[in-house]
Amino acid sequence: MKRFNVAVVGATGVVGREMIKTLEQRNFPVNKIKLLATERSAGTEISFRGEKIKVETAKSGVFDGVDIALFSAGSNASKELAPIAVKEGAVVIDNSNAFRMDTDVPLVVPEINPEKIKEHNGIIANPNCSTIQMVVPLKPIYDEVGIDRIIVSTYQAVSGTGKDAIEELLQQTKAYINKEELTSRVYPYQIAFNVLPQIDVFEENNYTREEMKIVHETRKIFNDNDLKITATAVRVPVINGHSESVYIETKEHICIEKLRSLLRNTKGVKLIDEVENLKYPLPIITENEDDVLVGRLRKDLSIKNGINMWVAANNLRKGAALNAIQIAEELIKII
Amino acid sequence: MKRFNVAVVGATGVVGREMIKTLEQRNFPVNKIKLLATERSAGTEISFRGEKIKVETAKSGVFDGVDIALFSAGSNASKELAPIAVKEGAVVIDNSNAFRMDTDVPLVVPEINPEKIKEHNGIIANPNCSTIQMVVPLKPIYDEVGIDRIIVSTYQAVSGTGKDAIEELLQQTKAYINKEELTSRVYPYQIAFNVLPQIDVFEENNYTREEMKIVHETRKIFNDNDLKITATAVRVPVINGHSESVYIETKEHICIEKLRSLLRNTKGVKLIDEVENLKYPLPIITENEDDVLVGRLRKDLSIKNGINMWVAANNLRKGAALNAIQIAEELIKII
Repeated sequence: MKRFNVAVVGATGVVGREMIKTLEQRNFPVNKIKLLATERSAGTEISFRGEKIKVETAKSGVFDGVDIALFSAGSNASKELAPIAVKEGAVVIDNSNAFRMDTDVPLVVPEINPEKIKEHNGIIANPNCSTIQMVVPLKPIYDEVGIDRIIVSTYQAVSGTGKDAIEELLQQTKAYINKEELTSRVYPYQIAFNVLPQIDVFEENNYTREEMKIVHETRKIFNDNDLKITATAVRVPVINGHSESVYIETKEHICIEKLRSLLRNTKGVKLIDEVENLKYPLPIITENEDDVLVGRLRKDLSIKNGINMWVAANNLRKGAALNAIQIAEELIKII
Repeated sequence: MKRFNVAVVGATGVVGREMIKTLEQRNFPVNKIKLLATERSAGTEISFRGEKIKVETAKSGVFDGVDIALFSAGSNASKELAPIAVKEGAVVIDNSNAFRMDTDVPLVVPEINPEKIKEHNGIIANPNCSTIQMVVPLKPIYDEVGIDRIIVSTYQAVSGTGKDAIEELLQQTKAYINKEELTSRVYPYQIAFNVLPQIDVFEENNYTREEMKIVHETRKIFNDNDLKITATAVRVPVINGHSESVYIETKEHICIEKLRSLLRNTKGVKLIDEVENLKYPLPIITENEDDVLVGRLRKDLSIKNGINMWVAANNLRKGAALNAIQIAEELIKII
């Protein structure tokens, strides 16, 4: 079996560490691994397959001999270093927002549009976490009866921001319990015992960038620019695991039993929809979960083709690291 | 000025205590106050206007001489005791779900339908917290351009469940921080660092009772049985202050500037919508707030008359105690 030289850029971040773990758990055919980060984090040691690997500084020259470079170090790092990695011979799978909407960059969720991978010009983009977990369960519905519109409200965990945000939530929580003063550095306001209707910066149109990512990326992944979609993205004091209240209107009618059976047979989806036994998706049960959890399926009783559902997923795994590795798994079939 | 004998049933609960505080803060013309609760809580002392008042057991006979009885002791207590209070001469303002949908019981939000108060037959119902904070800002829009449909996802604080739930969130949070085991008694699952897509019990149609309360109560308050509305109610680890992601489709077009100006001039609403300065409603800023906070107003860019908004309110005040006292204030104008 052919083995590949893999680099992880942003190796010390929450997604980077999850990528390393996922490569290991899924037995990705790694020949040599290179762990890369900013100069500040260089020297850190991280285990891979029982071996301690020293993190090196990500810079021009280090991608020489690398087959696949997994990037998760933020948009600026991707913009600067991904083209260099490509020039040095790597295929980049980028978890940042830098190239997702570029017309010559495939935006891939392997359960949905794996065929786009072969169109890459050196860079393949991994969608945003909140987009991925929504499109995976919507895809079979889209194919079966069509989707006219989507209205989504998110409940997003702090791990989506990074390790500083996890630290901030825990610090603020401790301070609150000890009746000490709360300080905020990562978020504009206290996140402990609060919810923030802002994720990422505000755009000109008064939507946040996170909300517009969901809109644009979903259209690109479904290859449907007419899809009506609007989003409200909200940060909640959950450590890991994003949840979403997803409302859709289908083009044709579908009954809930048929919908359940569709989702039960969808790869990457786990249906948890037994309200009589109080079983439904929860962020705390996504911890060791690769699948997107879907439940609370019900018809909007006031309109013909409206459906409510509740979706939860591990935003670091399917929402980021796992999806990137799954792209890599498809990629190596063709390189 | 005429003064009234007031009873508070459920005086030791979170809403009961807020009612007592609100009567005091708003200088409600109280002649004598009677604090009532279950036998278990009888004997507790609670301050009112600097005087310690002993809580008595709520039972037949105690409502003799009471003009207004404010009930917030749960549906069962209301079903049992409200008819008795009425028979003994009191007008009941009931915060429970017991009578809200009864055709001969007015369901009142004083900013919206105060005229219904005079139709009472002894009982006036206070709507559910999640309904009140939604209908207050929707009313001026409903009147101006009509509302065709509503799709709401809630982010509800644990105080809505009661003091045991606040205690449970704090206990679980402490246990988590101290790496101890978490136990749940009030909620079916851990609420600390988690979100629960279940509030109240499940109905036959797979919606929760909380979700159906929003549907039925909104239609009754707007006196519009054709209003299309669907809800997803979610508990979040916030101590106090409910938030809602409210999506509406208006019948006629309205621009955001006009909408802002409407809401700026709506009694009971405070518009906080300056995203350029990161100003928007948050549950933590509802603590001393009587108004419903509204912000993040924006058009659904994919459809003609769709509008997203974010609403937060103190669920114990405008969502419960304050609305009840405001009903009492209207009531005493006509008795």
